[in-house]
Amino acid sequence: MVCGAMIEIRPAVPADVATIRRLIVALAVYEREPDAVKATAEQLHAALFGARPVAEAVLALRDGVPVGLALFFTSFSTWEGRAGLYLEDLFVLPEARGQGIGKALLVHLAGIAVARDYARFEWQVLDWNTPAIGFYKALGATPRDEWTVMRVAGAALTTLAGTASPPA
Amino acid sequence: MVCGAMIEIRPAVPADVATIRRLIVALAVYEREPDAVKATAEQLHAALFGARPVAEAVLALRDGVPVGLALFFTSFSTWEGRAGLYLEDLFVLPEARGQGIGKALLVHLAGIAVARDYARFEWQVLDWNTPAIGFYKALGATPRDEWTVMRVAGAALTTLAGTASPPA
Repeated sequence: MVCGAMIEIRPAVPADVATIRRLIVALAVYEREPDAVKATAEQLHAALFGARPVAEAVLALRDGVPVGLALFFTSFSTWEGRAGLYLEDLFVLPEARGQGIGKALLVHLAGIAVARDYARFEWQVLDWNTPAIGFYKALGATPRDEWTVMRVAGAALTTLAGTASPPA
Repeated sequence: MVCGAMIEIRPAVPADVATIRRLIVALAVYEREPDAVKATAEQLHAALFGARPVAEAVLALRDGVPVGLALFFTSFSTWEGRAGLYLEDLFVLPEARGQGIGKALLVHLAGIAVARDYARFEWQVLDWNTPAIGFYKALGATPRDEWTVMRVAGAALTTLAGTASPPA
């Protein structure tokens, strides 16, 4: 038996905000969108640890060093009448991949979902990312191929909000 | 100018829970899945109006009678650092369609998103529902065609949660 690095998954705490932001920026750099991260440390702190948190985060540490992040929020299933876990971002630093850390994060989140009696655990994946899709399927996930996410944001959102809506 | 029915969109209140459940069941019946609604009035009350609400609802009333429902929760955009509005269900009773009520609900939700400084407003639509997709596009929504939602639920979720995860 080969003993490797020590991996720990734990909930993020307020002192982790700078680390979380660093991991988010690293993800954006990896995806070649280094300027896409507008989130400030203050915003992340408020979202995760403010008076009315809207998201939660867990960190993966390898030998005590943060190398992975999962950021999620609570969804809700109308038909089930139960909440769900919606994983917004999952990220493992490139140099820490291939060691089961992504899987450990997903298993940890599934454990949170079960402990809270959530109805489901969901996230999105890019269609062309067949290795990721295969990995997720092997973990028991089902692709909701027949559904498309619609999004309104930016100027379109402001416009829609200001649309006069005279029902007949 | 023809004056039609009086349409009102307002936030749901605790006294609306039975009405909300009735509309959810009507939607399930319409979708030919009458037994799919497991949500009890108690669960809906807790989710919408409990100590830690996980969802919100608005009702559409025609001449004072509830004919439409939008149920949503708060999402979060990591890169934006801001929350978002995720519409879980939008429903207008079949006999009240074609009167702009669905649009009025979407405009109302966009107004909530803008008022709260949310980064985005999202929902899902079935791929084959081209009339709905066209309607949403006309309102400024963009299909996120390149993304697929992955879901783990039921026994698969329990299994994943119990998976031994020995990182290398």
